[in-house]
Amino acid sequence: MTGDALSAVLDEGVLVTDPDRMEGFRRDSADFAEAGMPMAVVSARTVDDVSRTLRWASEHRTPVVPRGAGTGLSGAAAALDGCIVLSTAGMTAIRQIAADDLYAVVEPGVINADLGRAAAEHGLFYPPDPSSFEISTIGGNLATNAGGLRCVKYGVTRESVLGLQVVLADGRVIRTGARTVKNVAGYDLSSLFVGSEGTLGIITEATLRLRPAPAATPATMVATFGSLVDAGRAVASIVRSGLAPSLLELMDHASVNLIEDYRPMGLDRSVAALLIAQADSVDAQRQADAMAARARDAGAALAMASTDPVEADMLLQARRIHYQAVEAAGRVLTEDIGVPRSRLAELLGGIEEIGRRYSLLIATVGHAGDGNMHPAIVLPRDRPDAVATALRAADEICRFALRLDGTISGEHGIGTLKRGWLSGQLDEATYAAHRAVKSTFDPLGILNPGRAL
Amino acid sequence: MTGDALSAVLDEGVLVTDPDRMEGFRRDSADFAEAGMPMAVVSARTVDDVSRTLRWASEHRTPVVPRGAGTGLSGAAAALDGCIVLSTAGMTAIRQIAADDLYAVVEPGVINADLGRAAAEHGLFYPPDPSSFEISTIGGNLATNAGGLRCVKYGVTRESVLGLQVVLADGRVIRTGARTVKNVAGYDLSSLFVGSEGTLGIITEATLRLRPAPAATPATMVATFGSLVDAGRAVASIVRSGLAPSLLELMDHASVNLIEDYRPMGLDRSVAALLIAQADSVDAQRQADAMAARARDAGAALAMASTDPVEADMLLQARRIHYQAVEAAGRVLTEDIGVPRSRLAELLGGIEEIGRRYSLLIATVGHAGDGNMHPAIVLPRDRPDAVATALRAADEICRFALRLDGTISGEHGIGTLKRGWLSGQLDEATYAAHRAVKSTFDPLGILNPGRAL
Ligand SMILES: Cc1cc2nc3c(=O)[nH]c(=O)nc-3n(C[C@H](O)[C@H](O)[C@H](O)COP(=O)(O)OP(=O)(O)OC[C@H]3O[C@@H](n4cnc5c(N)ncnc54)[C@H](O)[C@@H]3O)c2cc1C
Ligand SMILES: Cc1cc2nc3c(=O)[nH]c(=O)nc-3n(C[C@H](O)[C@H](O)[C@H](O)COP(=O)(O)OP(=O)(O)OC[C@H]3O[C@@H](n4cnc5c(N)ncnc54)[C@H](O)[C@@H]3O)c2cc1C
Repeated sequence: MTGDALSAVLDEGVLVTDPDRMEGFRRDSADFAEAGMPMAVVSARTVDDVSRTLRWASEHRTPVVPRGAGTGLSGAAAALDGCIVLSTAGMTAIRQIAADDLYAVVEPGVINADLGRAAAEHGLFYPPDPSSFEISTIGGNLATNAGGLRCVKYGVTRESVLGLQVVLADGRVIRTGARTVKNVAGYDLSSLFVGSEGTLGIITEATLRLRPAPAATPATMVATFGSLVDAGRAVASIVRSGLAPSLLELMDHASVNLIEDYRPMGLDRSVAALLIAQADSVDAQRQADAMAARARDAGAALAMASTDPVEADMLLQARRIHYQAVEAAGRVLTEDIGVPRSRLAELLGGIEEIGRRYSLLIATVGHAGDGNMHPAIVLPRDRPDAVATALRAADEICRFALRLDGTISGEHGIGTLKRGWLSGQLDEATYAAHRAVKSTFDPLGILNPGRAL
Repeated sequence: MTGDALSAVLDEGVLVTDPDRMEGFRRDSADFAEAGMPMAVVSARTVDDVSRTLRWASEHRTPVVPRGAGTGLSGAAAALDGCIVLSTAGMTAIRQIAADDLYAVVEPGVINADLGRAAAEHGLFYPPDPSSFEISTIGGNLATNAGGLRCVKYGVTRESVLGLQVVLADGRVIRTGARTVKNVAGYDLSSLFVGSEGTLGIITEATLRLRPAPAATPATMVATFGSLVDAGRAVASIVRSGLAPSLLELMDHASVNLIEDYRPMGLDRSVAALLIAQADSVDAQRQADAMAARARDAGAALAMASTDPVEADMLLQARRIHYQAVEAAGRVLTEDIGVPRSRLAELLGGIEEIGRRYSLLIATVGHAGDGNMHPAIVLPRDRPDAVATALRAADEICRFALRLDGTISGEHGIGTLKRGWLSGQLDEATYAAHRAVKSTFDPLGILNPGRAL
């Protein structure tokens, strides 16, 4: 049996073949993605475990599905029948915090928030903060190029990568990048692996940029709008202004109401949209005031800056529990489109219209400052065609985003769920170039086949 | 004759075969790089010109050397015997300034400063500012991933790229990236082309991020040091502080003196190092004061913040004419290494020691805040072995930078001059991965062969 042969090349305790124990490695957080039954789960502890597994998989032409914490929302970490699930979640060492040089060297299984805490001990922080920061791994964050709330100011995961150690499909180990902030010796292979959803190689170590923690307590601005268009205009105006929000998030009417249902916080249920912004610079309060003024100019019903940390925490909490609040209402299909920021109002209007047309509850939230929105389509419990209808609505949302010069994925990735839409974004020659890169790094097609492309 | 055949596929006026006119396209600004005699120069006006040229070159297995303004310092744009020099310098259209969405769409021949001026009309700016910003093209900046003075705060060229149009070796045209700030649909091919020195494809259009112009007049800090070690410590301290210098440049003793020789400005000729910093945030003056305090703590002989724009201009001017000032002293070999910023003092000390050992005048200047330094090795006029000696010294400097966890090139690229050192930075498997990428995009090896890798 092949399972035994794989066990022969791995140290004791690394291989899991017990179906019950494998069950927990079959799915990621994309409810709708199909999940197969793996032949084995490798719970790697070292780069050598990864390398041996890939060498074995290459020899046996066995597909490998890389996996971190399984919080992904695109199905990219869902198991394939007969595959090896290669988990790097157990590689949790923070090898180095080079405080003076503002970088950290970490293994891929480190939880995002753990790196944040380790950095904080040195007065530093690691900016990329997906809402899943307490549960997702750096390896998964890298492979999806995760975004988050702070990315509007500090950039997405890619902007924090100095270098990687990567195991290639045949088991060879390479190092990309450097420990310097600038480097042009060689191609930028780091950026190629970042966001490649485990289809080009397995990341076994990362050198990540840290930054000095913002000196000031952030100041928070909250604004409510009677119309989505006004909210979109406020976002565009703030982005255009030269103010530097460290967070600029938007929730629509449906989102505010689902959050209030889930955990009453006294949010105003009547609003069309709620905008939350923060500034973390030394003039944070002045920035928050200026953002409030711009929100008012754009037509906000109410806009105010606050330095009350309790109120600020409550608002951020509301934003962060959006996912749970929506899930409490039913099964959810989470979308992830992006548009140039001046098109935000149009996008939001279009999503509403699509929801109405399909009689679907769509609760939209997102990183408005980056033009990246997450319409969460709630599946009606009582409709037999619910899944098909939700997928059709998602299809329209993606196509609409593309018509607005947008993208079908801002941060969650293509995975299995979005492959059908990729041809709407990448023309034939461009897609062929992607496939050529894929074949170069994975000639046998064993690395997460059928994902990302 | 092949030249005729090429002329048959191109519009009138695009092809240059007159040897006298071709002379100006044979070299870039790397004095020491060999330059061959091209069979033709194509002065492209459209993407179609580029595409037809590459199709023809593929059919005829003719090497193509892409070229912008020829200000490169690594020999990457120097002609090869019998090659086609493919110049995109004539593609100078600024197609769009999307002021509300903070991006510009430009052709590759646009001069960096021209984009800056066009953006300024909308209250915006394009951050990457190589010292050659008045003479170098965006295409060249992209292909080298150019850095500059402002990059310490705003990132290098790559951080300003949203998407590209690229003509592949066989003439097919692809589009990378998107018009959104976040995008994970497909691999990050933009970053792969950025910094690839024309070896993977020809960039024919770029969508570039703009930013709102900084609101404040910058405040400037200048500090003088009696020892390089103290200057290095000051840089590390400022970087570590959470202050956000928008510029942090260092000049050594030799540089200050060559500049004073070239254009007397009243700089103190006795200093070991001069540090110039700016802040452009609303609290710029406070930041400059804080930087001065840190410089003093690190041992500066003199450190002061100034808001006098005349004095600030004079200092920046001194920095910007460094290249000319050093060239006035003789032929120059410009190095371009980088180190983690805490190693800067060690690097500077090592460079001095190497200069002494080889009895060479080395004037070092650079983007200290990024750990990226340019030791300019001045060739003694009276020594017959001057070139060989300078190259040996450069070799030692590169090796020394690598020992300090550094890189052999921060922003000028590998070109032809640095290929010998690449194996000191990239191990065998990593180098092989680079070669595989090169073969994928350029299977016939016609795109700037022998450069970058
Ligand atoms: C409540 C919630 C909130 C979320 N909020 C955000 C958000 O704000 N922003 C955002 O971007 N995402 C968000 N996500 C999605 C998800 O958390 C991110 O995609 C995250 O980066 C996935 O990390 P993971 O460790 O769970 O990876 P997994 O889900 O296990 O894997 C994700 C991808 O990475 C690959 N992979 C994992 N490890 C490696 C490795 N070592 N080498 C190579 N490939 C690897 C997998 O094959 C897969 O393609 C959210 C998810 C949830 C459930
Ligand atoms: C005085 C002076 C100061 C400088 N200061 C800096 C500095 O501060 N920072 C810095 O980074 N550099 C600096 N440089 C180096 C140089 O200016 C940069 O490398 C610049 O980016 C080159 O642009 P260019 O248009 O001259 O390109 P070229 O020199 O013509 O070409 C450079 C490379 O780009 C390729 N290329 C050009 N156009 C294209 C295209 N359309 N598609 C694909 N490939 C293409 C060429 O093949 C070559 O590999 C300086 C040079 C000088 C002379």
